Amino acid sequence: MPHCQILLHAARIVTQDAERHVLDSASMAIDHGLISDIGTTDEMTRRWQADTCLNLGKSLILPGLINAHTHVAMTILRGLADDMPLMDWLNKRIFPVEHHLTPRLVRLGSLLGFAEMLRTGTTACTDMYIFEADVLEAAATAGLRCLAGEVVFAFPSAACPTPTAALEATRDLVSRYRGHDRLRVAVMPHSVYTTTPQILAACRDLAAELDLPLHIHLAETPEETRVCLKAHGRRPIDYCRNLGLLELPCSLAHVVDVTEEELAVLHSHNAVVVHNPSSNMKLASGTAPVTSMLKHGMTVALGTDGAASNNRLSIFTEMRRAALLHKLHTANPVSLPARTAFDMATLAGARAFGDPRLGSLAPGQAADCVALDLTEPNMQPLHNEISQIVYSATGMETRLTMVAGEILYQDGRFTRFDYPALCEEIHDLQHFLRKTAGLA
Amino acid sequence: MPHCQILLHAARIVTQDAERHVLDSASMAIDHGLISDIGTTDEMTRRWQADTCLNLGKSLILPGLINAHTHVAMTILRGLADDMPLMDWLNKRIFPVEHHLTPRLVRLGSLLGFAEMLRTGTTACTDMYIFEADVLEAAATAGLRCLAGEVVFAFPSAACPTPTAALEATRDLVSRYRGHDRLRVAVMPHSVYTTTPQILAACRDLAAELDLPLHIHLAETPEETRVCLKAHGRRPIDYCRNLGLLELPCSLAHVVDVTEEELAVLHSHNAVVVHNPSSNMKLASGTAPVTSMLKHGMTVALGTDGAASNNRLSIFTEMRRAALLHKLHTANPVSLPARTAFDMATLAGARAFGDPRLGSLAPGQAADCVALDLTEPNMQPLHNEISQIVYSATGMETRLTMVAGEILYQDGRFTRFDYPALCEEIHDLQHFLRKTAGLA
Repeated sequence: MPHCQILLHAARIVTQDAERHVLDSASMAIDHGLISDIGTTDEMTRRWQADTCLNLGKSLILPGLINAHTHVAMTILRGLADDMPLMDWLNKRIFPVEHHLTPRLVRLGSLLGFAEMLRTGTTACTDMYIFEADVLEAAATAGLRCLAGEVVFAFPSAACPTPTAALEATRDLVSRYRGHDRLRVAVMPHSVYTTTPQILAACRDLAAELDLPLHIHLAETPEETRVCLKAHGRRPIDYCRNLGLLELPCSLAHVVDVTEEELAVLHSHNAVVVHNPSSNMKLASGTAPVTSMLKHGMTVALGTDGAASNNRLSIFTEMRRAALLHKLHTANPVSLPARTAFDMATLAGARAFGDPRLGSLAPGQAADCVALDLTEPNMQPLHNEISQIVYSATGMETRLTMVAGEILYQDGRFTRFDYPALCEEIHDLQHFLRKTAGLA
Repeated sequence: MPHCQILLHAARIVTQDAERHVLDSASMAIDHGLISDIGTTDEMTRRWQADTCLNLGKSLILPGLINAHTHVAMTILRGLADDMPLMDWLNKRIFPVEHHLTPRLVRLGSLLGFAEMLRTGTTACTDMYIFEADVLEAAATAGLRCLAGEVVFAFPSAACPTPTAALEATRDLVSRYRGHDRLRVAVMPHSVYTTTPQILAACRDLAAELDLPLHIHLAETPEETRVCLKAHGRRPIDYCRNLGLLELPCSLAHVVDVTEEELAVLHSHNAVVVHNPSSNMKLASGTAPVTSMLKHGMTVALGTDGAASNNRLSIFTEMRRAALLHKLHTANPVSLPARTAFDMATLAGARAFGDPRLGSLAPGQAADCVALDLTEPNMQPLHNEISQIVYSATGMETRLTMVAGEILYQDGRFTRFDYPALCEEIHDLQHFLRKTAGLA
């Protein structure tokens, strides 16, 4: 009888495998961070001998969700700046606080954000911010997967005085985490409007040299297009293409103000788009043409953006919002069905993250999964599992979150760190943060 | 020392009183279903002697939220029909199942829906459906407040063969519940396109005779306007005004396809609009001009609609969705700020419900309140309570829900009914429901 470390049992397993199997009364055998086998509990208990059996009862297991664009440390700014014009939001609230950020504040904010992600079923994320070494330390503490990069600006950040320093910080991260199973590094220029052609070329060269992916905010607003046209004579996507950025494996956050021709260009370069519906709505940036992107055959993942423009870090929220927003936007209730939203949060997320072991539950895949409590009122009756995941679940039904076969969250407890102590530290920071934002 | 039945303590109380006080380390004295006093815990413990002290620790107390438009029994249809064109949705899934509904199915679906409402901080709702006597029985079981009416159609429903029978059922409900503290009755014609002028006149007359409010779906889609213009030579709002419906105290669900002139008409009649952003997005009905309504000075409350077109019954979801949707719709991140969304769910909800004791926490008001767990990751840091309620909370942070000083939900337990037994009954219905929907 073959042996595995863990045998998980649950009422349902939604696999996202090639045939999109949904299994009743099912089990998953896990060994050394990977899924060994998956099938009905009857078969599996006959077939496998396990060190640990974990019976999740009336739960639904799904692949861990992937948050393909966030600034997790901004979680400490949650609620500091809402309902403001974009420039006031940035200049009066966000930038003044970010100017005072320290490695410790970034670590604390990141750990709180990662706690929220684990609590709401996210097992991997792409993060862009300052002091990214500290974000990755927090990710190492929390245990979830993170693709991270020090943000590159033309101007000084609290962490890096120059764009060169930001690229050196990226190089340091690579030497530290090369070959790490859960933590990976990307080159992350902030955007076209906060960099120069020279900086973007340096980003491109570093990514090519170190074989890294690239992540950037792109075509977020009509204003960005206007500024880019004025400064460089090209619209943002053409400008990036012309600089050779699209030759790299890249994921592009937002892509709201975009034409059909530009979508064809992005598709021909296999660029992954990261759609952030909550942030685009809250900041009134516009509606990304996601249904057109999907018709082009493009890969579109989901992101939360930071907690200062969302204010949650839940991919459940983004799945539902995407499905509803594009029905309204296209005036068609058939647009962006639940299945598509779920694929965006899992399979497309895995492509954005650049790890094909993620996004589905099948032998050989990573044992990254989430269990939702089916006994909550909003999870009943269970006529359709995918509909329930996308339209009914809030994410707070998460009972268990596992990465690489390791339980990171279960029934109110985080396994890797002292959550109540973190909350105390966050609480003690509130006055300082409000003061730096000019609110106290 | 004055005496009260209950003294509630919490880290914060968001009162929604005239000055919008938010109190730190605060307490609320409750006696015979009403709030006797509210203040800091220091003052209150010196001032009041209580039968029961309930310390909710790191919780935020807010007024119970009001769901001003739903079809709660449709909760048993959750997930049966998504991502479909409106007419297929109705004719192929919803109507066939509704044709087979029985009083028992309506009671079970309603109780599950009420459980979800209590679980997510809703303490009062307006419900329109068939077998409404059974909805009210379920509401009496669950304990929350309900303004209910038997839906009136021109055609037979599973409950009533004629519109006259539906109005008789309404009359019966009134004789049963007249003077009830929590359960009230309204006249509820379904819509202009499912009734006739004679039926609407009979509804108006019954409401006037029995001094009841009126609740109707109105101006939900451009298609409704087209049909109304063709059949009656008037747009829906003008048609209702002409029939005298707007002379009654009325709440109007949806009001999406509406002109500025029509808003002025509605405002001059003190009509309350109930905005259902999730349903309008999921069915691709369009965007109600809520910011214009508010500029007119109209009262706009929030509703979830039924679980077949949402698929949740959480007013937290609708607050956030409304705030985000109208920022996008007006291309202005300042539109519909968190405070306004919260007012819609509380103070405007109280007006829609027709009970001025609801929607705020102050001496003399009903002791209808909700406690949110502030220790969840998404509730930290707490820079701004209203932002946290509207943008960060999912509703699942609810630890306690109280109506008229009675605890109806606390930490996973419903106090008035056997929730696990209900879940078993719902589970056993699934096959039958799928079969009637043509899915099994």
